[in-house]
Amino acid sequence: MAIITLTTDFGEKDHFAGAIKGAIYSEQPEVKIVDISHSVSPFSISEAAYIIQNAYSSFPKGTIHVIGIDSELNQENKHIAVKLDDHYFICANNGIMSMICSVIAPEKIVEINIHDKIETSFPVLDVFVKVACHIARGGTLEVVGKTIDTIKPIKNLIPFVNDEKNQIIGNVIYIDNYGNVVTNIRKKFFEDIQKGRAFEISARNYKFKTIYSKYSDVVNFDIEEDKRNDEGKALVVFNSSKFLEIAIYKSNTTTVGSASTLMGLSMRDTVTINFLND
Amino acid sequence: MAIITLTTDFGEKDHFAGAIKGAIYSEQPEVKIVDISHSVSPFSISEAAYIIQNAYSSFPKGTIHVIGIDSELNQENKHIAVKLDDHYFICANNGIMSMICSVIAPEKIVEINIHDKIETSFPVLDVFVKVACHIARGGTLEVVGKTIDTIKPIKNLIPFVNDEKNQIIGNVIYIDNYGNVVTNIRKKFFEDIQKGRAFEISARNYKFKTIYSKYSDVVNFDIEEDKRNDEGKALVVFNSSKFLEIAIYKSNTTTVGSASTLMGLSMRDTVTINFLND
Amino acid sequence: MAIITLTTDFGEKDHFAGAIKGAIYSEQPEVKIVDISHSVSPFSISEAAYIIQNAYSSFPKGTIHVIGIDSELNQENKHIAVKLDDHYFICANNGIMSMICSVIAPEKIVEINIHDKIETSFPVLDVFVKVACHIARGGTLEVVGKTIDTIKPIKNLIPFVNDEKNQIIGNVIYIDNYGNVVTNIRKKFFEDIQKGRAFEISARNYKFKTIYSKYSDVVNFDIEEDKRNDEGKALVVFNSSKFLEIAIYKSNTTTVGSASTLMGLSMRDTVTINFLND
Repeated sequence: MAIITLTTDFGEKDHFAGAIKGAIYSEQPEVKIVDISHSVSPFSISEAAYIIQNAYSSFPKGTIHVIGIDSELNQENKHIAVKLDDHYFICANNGIMSMICSVIAPEKIVEINIHDKIETSFPVLDVFVKVACHIARGGTLEVVGKTIDTIKPIKNLIPFVNDEKNQIIGNVIYIDNYGNVVTNIRKKFFEDIQKGRAFEISARNYKFKTIYSKYSDVVNFDIEEDKRNDEGKALVVFNSSKFLEIAIYKSNTTTVGSASTLMGLSMRDTVTINFLND
Repeated sequence: MAIITLTTDFGEKDHFAGAIKGAIYSEQPEVKIVDISHSVSPFSISEAAYIIQNAYSSFPKGTIHVIGIDSELNQENKHIAVKLDDHYFICANNGIMSMICSVIAPEKIVEINIHDKIETSFPVLDVFVKVACHIARGGTLEVVGKTIDTIKPIKNLIPFVNDEKNQIIGNVIYIDNYGNVVTNIRKKFFEDIQKGRAFEISARNYKFKTIYSKYSDVVNFDIEEDKRNDEGKALVVFNSSKFLEIAIYKSNTTTVGSASTLMGLSMRDTVTINFLND
Repeated sequence: MAIITLTTDFGEKDHFAGAIKGAIYSEQPEVKIVDISHSVSPFSISEAAYIIQNAYSSFPKGTIHVIGIDSELNQENKHIAVKLDDHYFICANNGIMSMICSVIAPEKIVEINIHDKIETSFPVLDVFVKVACHIARGGTLEVVGKTIDTIKPIKNLIPFVNDEKNQIIGNVIYIDNYGNVVTNIRKKFFEDIQKGRAFEISARNYKFKTIYSKYSDVVNFDIEEDKRNDEGKALVVFNSSKFLEIAIYKSNTTTVGSASTLMGLSMRDTVTINFLND
């Protein structure tokens, strides 16, 4: 029984996600549909790329991932289906797949060409669902599109490293539900440049010299619970997806504040790491 | 295996939707439950009517749609079950069904009368689930209610047309996740009045003379991508549900703004179309 | 076929909930996964406790409830699995279970001890899913943890009653999607103290002398519908979960206002009931 996941910017209120589920069940009653997210910020390729990259690999091999972000077909925005890591992805060729593809080479990419048979202003419903159900039935990508070699890239995917290799300049690529600020600096990338050196991380006026491996490492458990004031402390961690993240311990954007709100960090802002030579 | 869909104003946080799913699985473990929306604005009959109308027909025939909006039973707010277009709908008789019923005549309407056996302050859980599971088991509507002929209407369903038939005055009936503003003017209704004439659409101080069939028709692809400034352009489209919609290209209510926020258009505001005589 | 429910503070946008569903299906393709809520306020033990208590019992016996709130493992925050009322609960030992356990005694509590085999910074994914799937396969709690006797309590669970037994002081423990304000005063608790006496409920400057059994009891149906002004009226009800709740009839936090916004009532605020001696 195939699994089809949904990642869209349709939001929680509108009928779009519901209509898509209905269309899938109408065609393939036995499939399992799993919502990954419908709350991607409208048209945010960068957020969608981050979300799908971090969710897909938990699913069984063969899972089909439908990504409905900025998917209106036009001469510059074609539809693609990608096989990668034994998973299938169906989306617009607008950069969403470039984050995953920068880590794992796709096995096959096709530009979907079944549109001449379909008149639509809701391509996720009318095109993506058709392709997903085709794959769920065991169909091949070649039947729904023609093979292409490359996909459209997104900017700011890879942090900048200077020639001396003592500075990394990264960018904020995601702000999570806790207001924690995720950069495009991956743990392995960081460690390859670091080579064990001490460092200083700068984000706006804030400086950090430690990267924790979990949030509560910031807590001093030797102090009695009532006398600590860890909540609200800023820290840097490699998050569970192995990206460098600036966080506030036990943050809440709408009450006590978060890394994003308290430190004024927004999407695309820079985060700089300077390595200290021995 | 029956499908039961849920459309409510319970929101994403509270336990209500979860409790309902538990109650359905307790009674009918084999049913499929599909969330259409739990983020209808509290008590918004109009939003719920729009959402269910645009979602239901993607589902297979025989699907059972539970709509939990303003469903507390009282002497003026009875519960109904409706069979229409081979789908089943269970909701309060508060106008929600009148938008669908204005397009397709219901096959059967019953006023649910199983309440004497049920003491409840949570009727969606205690009454609607019972009725839905009864239908899922193949039960008929007559067993759970007595047949009635008409349902409660909602206001502002049909736009106003003047006697000269050169003006339509419609209303905003829905604002979607992108802040796009949907009116009650359907494509077919518009075209029947238009009869090929030129027209001007007015919403507040904004005027439009074109209705696009998709959002990116507003883009001039002859200009280089970097030199365009399409994002943020206002336009009018017939949306994928065939309603006249005022939109902003690639809008985002919380960042760059949207038709609703930038143009100050709210629920029930009027949108006027004047046709130019030949 | 086992059911696994999810209650978390992961929000609707991030990949966390999607990743967890993928991990469950990877291990147990036949299980049913049901979202109870992913919109618990970040780190709100009190909200999570209220939600899971009111949702769990609608599910069939044997259901496994995964609760992902403040679940990072550290020396003060251990992981537990609880069997209670023939349901299973997997969460951090941070007070979430104390509301349910105050009503129904747990049958078994184990402190999970499979962590030495698992390196993780995402324990809900790596630990809770493993335990849930173990239980779904019919495994016992003893295999995944060592039995413990007590769990961590939360504060403000039980309202204060004075020695004369003519005053109850309760607290706001939950604010729902309608902005209605739920206190920790249960119907049975209230009635046991009340013993039929008249009473006055005070919340900030507002006073109430009646507790309704449903919201629309505040409406005077003898008046014509157009001439009533019930919408916006404040009232007190025992809600469908049998907690004393301060509500506004047909409220909407973002438009007309709600009990929380209009009366300025927030989490942990006090609500006082004075009983009048005969």
